[in-house]
Amino acid sequence: MMKYPLTITSILNRARIYFPRKEVVTRLPGSIHRYSYADLYTRVCRLSNVLSSLGVEKGDRVGVFGWNTYRYLEAYFAAPCMGAVVHTINIRLAPNDLVHIINHAKDKVLLIDEDLLPAIEAIAPRLETVKQFVVMTDDEIASQGLPNAHDYETLMAQASDSYDFPELGEDDPAGLCYTSATTGDPKGVTYSHRGLYLHTLTQCMTDSLSLSERDVILPVVPMFHANTWGVPYTSAFLGATLVLPGPRPDAAAVCNLIQQEKVTISLGVPTIWIGVLDYVARSEGSCDLSSLRSLVSGGSAVPPYMFRAFDDMGIPMTHAYGMTEATPLVTICNYKSHMESWDDDAKMNVRVKQGLPVAGLEIRLVDENGTDLPWDGVNSGELLVRGPWVAGEYLDDERSGDTFIDGWYHTGDVVTVDPEGYVQIVDRAKDMVKSGGEWISSVDLEAAIMAHPAVYEAAVIGIPHDRWQERPLAYVVPTAEHRDSLDRDTVLAHLEDKFARWWLPDDVIFIDEMPKTAVGKFDKKVLRQQYASAAPTAPTTSGGTQ
Amino acid sequence: MMKYPLTITSILNRARIYFPRKEVVTRLPGSIHRYSYADLYTRVCRLSNVLSSLGVEKGDRVGVFGWNTYRYLEAYFAAPCMGAVVHTINIRLAPNDLVHIINHAKDKVLLIDEDLLPAIEAIAPRLETVKQFVVMTDDEIASQGLPNAHDYETLMAQASDSYDFPELGEDDPAGLCYTSATTGDPKGVTYSHRGLYLHTLTQCMTDSLSLSERDVILPVVPMFHANTWGVPYTSAFLGATLVLPGPRPDAAAVCNLIQQEKVTISLGVPTIWIGVLDYVARSEGSCDLSSLRSLVSGGSAVPPYMFRAFDDMGIPMTHAYGMTEATPLVTICNYKSHMESWDDDAKMNVRVKQGLPVAGLEIRLVDENGTDLPWDGVNSGELLVRGPWVAGEYLDDERSGDTFIDGWYHTGDVVTVDPEGYVQIVDRAKDMVKSGGEWISSVDLEAAIMAHPAVYEAAVIGIPHDRWQERPLAYVVPTAEHRDSLDRDTVLAHLEDKFARWWLPDDVIFIDEMPKTAVGKFDKKVLRQQYASAAPTAPTTSGGTQ
Repeated sequence: MMKYPLTITSILNRARIYFPRKEVVTRLPGSIHRYSYADLYTRVCRLSNVLSSLGVEKGDRVGVFGWNTYRYLEAYFAAPCMGAVVHTINIRLAPNDLVHIINHAKDKVLLIDEDLLPAIEAIAPRLETVKQFVVMTDDEIASQGLPNAHDYETLMAQASDSYDFPELGEDDPAGLCYTSATTGDPKGVTYSHRGLYLHTLTQCMTDSLSLSERDVILPVVPMFHANTWGVPYTSAFLGATLVLPGPRPDAAAVCNLIQQEKVTISLGVPTIWIGVLDYVARSEGSCDLSSLRSLVSGGSAVPPYMFRAFDDMGIPMTHAYGMTEATPLVTICNYKSHMESWDDDAKMNVRVKQGLPVAGLEIRLVDENGTDLPWDGVNSGELLVRGPWVAGEYLDDERSGDTFIDGWYHTGDVVTVDPEGYVQIVDRAKDMVKSGGEWISSVDLEAAIMAHPAVYEAAVIGIPHDRWQERPLAYVVPTAEHRDSLDRDTVLAHLEDKFARWWLPDDVIFIDEMPKTAVGKFDKKVLRQQYASAAPTAPTTSGGTQ
Repeated sequence: MMKYPLTITSILNRARIYFPRKEVVTRLPGSIHRYSYADLYTRVCRLSNVLSSLGVEKGDRVGVFGWNTYRYLEAYFAAPCMGAVVHTINIRLAPNDLVHIINHAKDKVLLIDEDLLPAIEAIAPRLETVKQFVVMTDDEIASQGLPNAHDYETLMAQASDSYDFPELGEDDPAGLCYTSATTGDPKGVTYSHRGLYLHTLTQCMTDSLSLSERDVILPVVPMFHANTWGVPYTSAFLGATLVLPGPRPDAAAVCNLIQQEKVTISLGVPTIWIGVLDYVARSEGSCDLSSLRSLVSGGSAVPPYMFRAFDDMGIPMTHAYGMTEATPLVTICNYKSHMESWDDDAKMNVRVKQGLPVAGLEIRLVDENGTDLPWDGVNSGELLVRGPWVAGEYLDDERSGDTFIDGWYHTGDVVTVDPEGYVQIVDRAKDMVKSGGEWISSVDLEAAIMAHPAVYEAAVIGIPHDRWQERPLAYVVPTAEHRDSLDRDTVLAHLEDKFARWWLPDDVIFIDEMPKTAVGKFDKKVLRQQYASAAPTAPTTSGGTQ
């Protein structure tokens, strides 16, 4: 066979050659922006020239800090196709984390949405490697608060619209994304061209999401999350219409986009779909989502009522499961053909699971000693994954060895696998809270709370939440002398300058003694049970500002 | 990303782990054989042990000479997964060609269907590398005419049912298939694990054949043809039910299988579908093919009447196009979404084309100087192809340099490409006749005819044929002294011991002078025109014994 590398450039070229008139649609404030894949290609060439002129060379990282728009999409292709790396930065990170990952990634250029400038301006003096800032705006408004700031469209207009993309090796890095750690700084995952290409092929399979050129695909999942779950590359490879929801997509915006653009499939976290259900209920029939053939939900488990609510609208919802380390697809929950005739209850027992591993990945279920457990749907253990789009290490990170062991990625998720091979998450080995699809480290919160002089011990657990799926709740044992004086507001105020606002616990519960396990660790299982029995009709908290 | 090789072993394991109860169904004389993918896996382990015990080592070739059955399927997996190579031998080759390819491939072991033994017994003394012959039979009947002959099931029964498959490199050879040359011996194409794996992924795309676990797939295309067009590997990867048509599948057998096994998609050459149409017409409504969601036709162009005839039965027929050198998929003719609303005539203009290149391949359209031609549906030129499942050379063959040039495979097919990217074959640069999906070299026939002392000049052209799509027709200029005495039967008798019977021209037409081009070459275009004007209601010939 020929030596033929699997690259993002091939994906871009397929859109250009066979689907030049298909569209990329972006919701902007007050308007809809449309252009074709032919336009995308030309703009990717321009952006490649722009990045070259800003000093970006092979292997350099280009950071992007923005909402889902066509400009972000241009960076998704330009950086990898010119041999550089697109670093997708989570706009919800706390300032310290932003500083860390941008410096750690050694980003050379940062592309920033205009309305997100304040977050970058605030940390600019601490960024050690960024040489140039480019503001993604229609206007000629370069930031006053940034050195070497340019505006995107001025640079684009000056650049040539052709670019001779280099031949690349398929193992060359193409993308970079950081994921929160249980403790310590976020960890970076580098995506190769090969990994992204193979992930794309698998996503195009009939038995994964059945994506096709016919689809109008709306990724509500942010483009800074694990390659937008693969959607930008898959859409281009297929020539599917891609609809990008732009800044701050709320339920109304998502519903309107689906209706106006006749979206056939949309992907996002359950928090989005909770909002959509609520919006539809309030719209009194004026909201028509009938163009949808499928909704894909990932990031947290979908409760049965949500499946049923969308069923009632004639819209099948499908579970997908993955993580930053796996590009991200690991499982998708489709029925096997012999299940099609099952009754609704039996089918629901399948749907609530995370699904079958997608074709190309291998999984194992192991106990704490690494011994394989039976796939009986009962025994739970840690899920291990390997395959061509699974990371082999974290970028320049000593912690890699804790997670990538003997060729297997240890997910930290505690799951069962049933005899059919369907994975179901039952707990999380990583001590993390997942709020609205984003990770919150309970360990980091606990350490910060316990740094307060009036706190003796503190533990943070995730509790169920209607909108955000899970929110952090703090249990605090005050020191003896502050047993009667420490209050909730003092604890939260102490955290305010250390974390993003949405990380702060929704509440603080004071207890006299911390339950502990046999080896003296905080026993969060007991705390969760206490919470559940105290609040049997949970969730009750109101917080969260994502 | 992890180093994770793309191998046939992964494909086999997916069937074993997730779809162990799905079936492989084989039509045998007078019965239907069924077993599950779990059984297949066990039998593949046994066969791997058998082959090891017969001396097969990493890289060795295992030849298979048989019909589409489960035993052939076992070889499709056992040889590659143990690190050897499955050499699929065309059972329709002439003895000299068989001897050549088996010796050239250095086959160490030959697996032979019992009813095909005579063909191998006749050439056994000339086989230089084959150490062991294994007869694929239910009975304990080792061939009397072969040295070192074993029977398959006795060896299998003695072998262990577990096998520790080795770790392989994805570029390791997995398969081998020979293709007829315009002149000279057949040329061998080696398939790597990587190439076959990526071909499988592409075949699983919604926008290629939409194959899924739900499908019941019947490849009528022989397993000795270009990896059965990829079907065995794709079926296992998906867990689809695979139906194998066994020995000598005629139209009745194919129709009965479709009806009994509720086949949803079947693949074969137009000759098969002509027979099916005829059989259905004669069955007076007793033949129910309503389980079919798709028929895939490749190997030759499908005439519009055939599309329409299947349309009338509610069965969409789809063109696919490829070749041995491309594993084989190159194009599939699906509509783009914007064509769905076109009227029937406009759609037919798309359907008769060979289709869009499948995702992952690149094509070029070039003139005789290698200059790219416009994709306007008018300009015709040679089709060049490259991609990860396209051969880079012929196996140990000096002719490789004529076909694989500067990283592109030169197909020898003269095509147009329309502005949408759809390829249509308009002529063949290779001087070959394609009869019932098999190649016949007109150059070889001509050379043999001209070797007759009474022949001065001879040219062979392909003429349209109802059943075989194309059949060879010889034009002969006798020498002056034999102008009145040479007859058809003498010419054909002269060819009989040199070629397979189905290669012989259907007729011989004697002419006084051979039309020639400006540079003195036989002008076959003029001969084709003469034939067409003499026989405007072609086809008329009756021959062919495939």
